[in-house]
Amino acid sequence: MANHHAPAHSTRRRPALRVLAPTTDEAIVASPVQTVTFGPLEMELGGRLEEFTLAFQTWGRLNDAGANAVLVLHALTGDSAAGGPGGWWGPLIGPGLALDTDDAFVISANVLGGCQGSTGPASNDPLTGRPYAMRFPLLTIGDMVNAQRRLVEHLGVTRLLAIGGSIGGFQALEWAARHPDLVGAAVPIAATGALDPQGIAMNEIGRRAIMADPNWRGGAYQAEGVFPADGLAIARMVGMVTYHSKESMALRFGRNPATRPTLHPGFGSTYDVEGYLHYHGAALVRRFDPNSYLYLTRAMDLYDVGRNGGSDHWLSRITAPTLLVGIRSDWLFLPGDIQALTGQLLALGCDARYAELDSPHGHDAFLKEWDQLTAILEPWIAQFLADRHQS
Amino acid sequence: MANHHAPAHSTRRRPALRVLAPTTDEAIVASPVQTVTFGPLEMELGGRLEEFTLAFQTWGRLNDAGANAVLVLHALTGDSAAGGPGGWWGPLIGPGLALDTDDAFVISANVLGGCQGSTGPASNDPLTGRPYAMRFPLLTIGDMVNAQRRLVEHLGVTRLLAIGGSIGGFQALEWAARHPDLVGAAVPIAATGALDPQGIAMNEIGRRAIMADPNWRGGAYQAEGVFPADGLAIARMVGMVTYHSKESMALRFGRNPATRPTLHPGFGSTYDVEGYLHYHGAALVRRFDPNSYLYLTRAMDLYDVGRNGGSDHWLSRITAPTLLVGIRSDWLFLPGDIQALTGQLLALGCDARYAELDSPHGHDAFLKEWDQLTAILEPWIAQFLADRHQS
Repeated sequence: MANHHAPAHSTRRRPALRVLAPTTDEAIVASPVQTVTFGPLEMELGGRLEEFTLAFQTWGRLNDAGANAVLVLHALTGDSAAGGPGGWWGPLIGPGLALDTDDAFVISANVLGGCQGSTGPASNDPLTGRPYAMRFPLLTIGDMVNAQRRLVEHLGVTRLLAIGGSIGGFQALEWAARHPDLVGAAVPIAATGALDPQGIAMNEIGRRAIMADPNWRGGAYQAEGVFPADGLAIARMVGMVTYHSKESMALRFGRNPATRPTLHPGFGSTYDVEGYLHYHGAALVRRFDPNSYLYLTRAMDLYDVGRNGGSDHWLSRITAPTLLVGIRSDWLFLPGDIQALTGQLLALGCDARYAELDSPHGHDAFLKEWDQLTAILEPWIAQFLADRHQS
Repeated sequence: MANHHAPAHSTRRRPALRVLAPTTDEAIVASPVQTVTFGPLEMELGGRLEEFTLAFQTWGRLNDAGANAVLVLHALTGDSAAGGPGGWWGPLIGPGLALDTDDAFVISANVLGGCQGSTGPASNDPLTGRPYAMRFPLLTIGDMVNAQRRLVEHLGVTRLLAIGGSIGGFQALEWAARHPDLVGAAVPIAATGALDPQGIAMNEIGRRAIMADPNWRGGAYQAEGVFPADGLAIARMVGMVTYHSKESMALRFGRNPATRPTLHPGFGSTYDVEGYLHYHGAALVRRFDPNSYLYLTRAMDLYDVGRNGGSDHWLSRITAPTLLVGIRSDWLFLPGDIQALTGQLLALGCDARYAELDSPHGHDAFLKEWDQLTAILEPWIAQFLADRHQS
């Protein structure tokens, strides 16, 4: 396998991250968080990063041909901790699991623009020594994938399966359409080819809440020693509503009174669903950068697989077998719209298939329905691994 | 008809309101905005108002029996200006229209807790001479209806048809269930018997945005000479998303670039749907009181037709023929849930019927689909008027 301990450009391990102890290839099954820094990146919509760091983790081993990689792509506020105990896809990644690390080399990187170890608005701009904040260049899903390509090539990957949900699904589709030379299979989950206006509206409400917070300071809250906690919490509350479904909220909360202590002054009864939103708002404040939230939601809005040429043009470039997964109760990305995208791919002659999670849990079902995900993904990934010598 | 110029308690016409010129009954077809002030009101959840004012308008004439009244109940941020040119139900109220003012006496009052002429948090507390702000007692749909009852009795109404959409629909149902002695027919539109947790969640996000605005000042913005415009605008943006549908937003905005000048600093493309939300946020700031928004959304959350006794108990008290109207694309109040409520009423032996607006416009279709509304409402209201001597 490629020596992925030697950085392409330079390695900067952040104090918060565990340092990877030198070890032999034999011992590397699950890696701790590593970072690798690369040279300049020209951004899709203009601007450039002189250098950028990606934080990533791997599970399993890359084979000699570099052809057994599974690139796991996280959702909006996710991170590289996909596998292992507590990982956001822990029940899917490991020996004998759907993403079988006895056979596959699983990679998960925090996205460019994120704040979980990769370069984003909270990082220091090497040109100024100060945080980029709102001087970070406008970011797209295409930029995230271009950065990921630098990482996987650095690791020695020659062929990969790209898989992820929500904006991870956008990235999987982007990989398949714009980097077909490296993609042996793609699994976009809970994602279409572009966010619809209702989704843009929800993102914009969250952004306005952040930018209206007096502690946002035009994005310069780090320099000024403050933090727009209220705005970020409200943005998260908006997001949580879109990740659930009407059905899941009725099942889980109903009109029950709050079971958590009240975090905010209010009046009248506090309902359980309110306590839940407050809790998740406060939880994101402890782990996420508000400017990163702005940039990542904007990248989500901006994504359109058919930009600059039309969707027929770009989708027809997909050569990899592509499994599109919808969720019955998802109202952020309607299963009908994902079925329509599957139909478009088939009409273009692509090897596309559609599967659906029969779940009440809405958009976030791809982080919950382990049995159904395993049943859908296991044969598909096994096929990708069996085909490894065909590409 | 009753002399509704003579107040029950005292009349206080606000400077902003037109003063009603003395006139004969013969000339009164459409009235200007009038106000009437009543004595103490005990609130459902505790607290009391020493006095309260309602602003209202009427169209047509009350008959000698007082039995031809149609009480039109507005939605969250509505007002008494239901009929006439520019009225929010203008195409439905007038001679020869669905609410035929040649035959019916139409009444529309701004709700208690509102800010369009009726007593609400922005009004002066007579005990202190200062605005109530957050010392206004907790408000319910039941309180609004109790206040309306004082008004219609004052006007000489002995029998009415209660009709409205959204929280106006809650009020129509509350009238039918808790004031059956006065209700000859009820038409709750786009409303069930209680808001579901997704709806509570959306309201809570709006409230948090208002309360997080540094100019909210614990509700004392009037006294301090400031105004939480950002918070109220964000709350309105949340509301607008729930009033539309995914379908109507796709039809109207798609992923088109903004057609309005940008109201806020942003980054990247501005989409048409964003410009629309910004516009409506700014528009509500010019006409609505933020504390009133807090109280009215809380009343919406708190509403449950079955509170204190269960829904079977209260629904079985309904004696009036009840027409429930759903909207195909409404995701705030699902048509299936309104059908279920209709089924419950039928199972209890009530004279209930269900009709549906086949509209892509979501919740707000009851403010848009004039032809369908007319077709549904006209025969129903005509029947109520024909039955006037039966009660």
